Amino acid sequence: MNTSSQMVDSKIMLTIEPPSQQWLARARARLDQLTKPLGSLGRLEDLAAQMVSIREEAFAEPMRKAVYVFAADHGVTAEGVSAYPREVTRQMVLNFLAHGAAINVLARAHQVEMNVVDVGVDADFDHSDGLLHRKVRRGTRNMMREPAMSEDELTNALDVGLKLADDAKAIGYNLVAVGEMGIGNTTAASAITSALTREPVNRITGKGTGLNSEALTHKCLVIEAVLAKHFGNRLPNPLDVLRCVGGLEIAAITGFILGAARHRLAVVIDGFISTAAAAIAFAIAPQVSGYLFAGHQSEEPGHRVLLEYMGLKPILALNMRLGEGTGAVLAMPILESALCLYNQMATFESAGVSEAKD
Amino acid sequence: MNTSSQMVDSKIMLTIEPPSQQWLARARARLDQLTKPLGSLGRLEDLAAQMVSIREEAFAEPMRKAVYVFAADHGVTAEGVSAYPREVTRQMVLNFLAHGAAINVLARAHQVEMNVVDVGVDADFDHSDGLLHRKVRRGTRNMMREPAMSEDELTNALDVGLKLADDAKAIGYNLVAVGEMGIGNTTAASAITSALTREPVNRITGKGTGLNSEALTHKCLVIEAVLAKHFGNRLPNPLDVLRCVGGLEIAAITGFILGAARHRLAVVIDGFISTAAAAIAFAIAPQVSGYLFAGHQSEEPGHRVLLEYMGLKPILALNMRLGEGTGAVLAMPILESALCLYNQMATFESAGVSEAKD
Repeated sequence: MNTSSQMVDSKIMLTIEPPSQQWLARARARLDQLTKPLGSLGRLEDLAAQMVSIREEAFAEPMRKAVYVFAADHGVTAEGVSAYPREVTRQMVLNFLAHGAAINVLARAHQVEMNVVDVGVDADFDHSDGLLHRKVRRGTRNMMREPAMSEDELTNALDVGLKLADDAKAIGYNLVAVGEMGIGNTTAASAITSALTREPVNRITGKGTGLNSEALTHKCLVIEAVLAKHFGNRLPNPLDVLRCVGGLEIAAITGFILGAARHRLAVVIDGFISTAAAAIAFAIAPQVSGYLFAGHQSEEPGHRVLLEYMGLKPILALNMRLGEGTGAVLAMPILESALCLYNQMATFESAGVSEAKD
Repeated sequence: MNTSSQMVDSKIMLTIEPPSQQWLARARARLDQLTKPLGSLGRLEDLAAQMVSIREEAFAEPMRKAVYVFAADHGVTAEGVSAYPREVTRQMVLNFLAHGAAINVLARAHQVEMNVVDVGVDADFDHSDGLLHRKVRRGTRNMMREPAMSEDELTNALDVGLKLADDAKAIGYNLVAVGEMGIGNTTAASAITSALTREPVNRITGKGTGLNSEALTHKCLVIEAVLAKHFGNRLPNPLDVLRCVGGLEIAAITGFILGAARHRLAVVIDGFISTAAAAIAFAIAPQVSGYLFAGHQSEEPGHRVLLEYMGLKPILALNMRLGEGTGAVLAMPILESALCLYNQMATFESAGVSEAKD
């Protein structure tokens, strides 16, 4: 057993408990007393019940929300797998810090505190700019030639996420979204997806930020070669998958999700990349899924496969494929609405409304 | 040609213009300059572009939002078509006025002004309670025996909606949702749907607020009998459909939508019943669809058929089947998010971000 596995196994996995089944049942009972036909709020009822089961509260106080956007570069971009040049990772981090990106707009619109984390961007940033400086390495190694991370790099990247989850708990957030920025990271996410689920690469690989069909074919060949090189026909363990074909931002999100689940903190995951990170966490400790909300269904074909792998149903399906946490933050008002309904609606008894005949 | 048709044709239909194609193209051009891969915001881009085409503004100021909940009773409840007793319409109106219903909670959560309109509840309400008193009649007539409305009643109900749309414009709302409350009104909506689309009744009729399968069979038989009685094999005009098998709240919503479209006001429709009202407006003046946003896909099987009939795609799909405007108001933060992204995101040029290769 390697260093990373030991660390995760001993410190985290055993300390993650699933959300409370008792509180779930209590939540269901309350929902049935509210002035509406039984079950007529559909998925909103499931979302409210899950949130109550996570927080173990009869009436949850207002949400304090944050999004963590993890950024890193990818050595595999040397293989020509992305429609955008590698320097866009750095440029977009600067755009985040200047409040000009889609995630900034959505976070502002929905009162979500924004945290940008440099886990491994191939650039130097000014230390007075509001960025969370947690650089493990200037990008992963090229997984076509060697594992994307060394053991130590993986451990450090996981630890970035674990510690930020501790911070999130200490700050008092009770709903956190995860997002990412990293040119080349749909390649890593596809490799993870195929390694975890055994789905053929061409079924779970998409155009990322906008490849044409020729470039997509090339991307699939790269991913197949990477998987053959590192794993051959053997079934690798989840941390080996993460280390060999993952990314620094993906590992940090995996660590963040494990840490958040340990703290009983609800996490909204975003698109294909953050969901790949969640799937690694799920493969290590399946009980984390009780703390996860799938913000949306992205256009990347592998995303659906990963959500099914974890038994999660997306809240939104708006054909988005941007990342950054945009789909996760956009789902937050829906989640909050579900909790408001749970907390604030009248009951049949309090409102003097007749119940259904049967 | 009857009175109602004359009124609608002469006063409204000719004065509704489709949203601006020029502004739609301008909006698309701007969306392509924002710092994101082309098209990666998916449906949010469509929503923003449609809103800009409706409002004909480069940068739309913040939304002032309202929901109008139209309530009325239905004579057809005498035939045993609902799981809830008829008096629940009155009780739920009182629940709305006491701020205890689902729509109140969602309107409050998303800063949406709430207007409750009595178009035809079979009850007397106090005149100091905040209700908009527009009662045309204490419920429709039983459509199993006679047309649901007389010519005058239909004209008056349409007029309630038309005048409220004038008020909405005068108040300065720029995004309005429509909802309804009326025990028995899924029966009317199914009858309208079958009459407009020629789909068989059993394919477009659902459990409403929660019928068992035996009661659902009975409901279908009632609707088939009603359609045979009023229309036989002929293809009725939309206002005849509305008058014979509609409802007072449904007619008011039809009037409201026609009036809103005339004022170039964006309307979010809700579930099966408000969509049936919109479908009547669409059948009269197809250009209204440019002003409509489908808030959600409800569980009622006829809803999907009506949305397809109008070429609308729902924003949310959360298995809701409550009505009241809940699905429409829940979609408002998504619509607002789309406009915020459109207005506030940096461009590639302003942010110094590289564009995609080739």
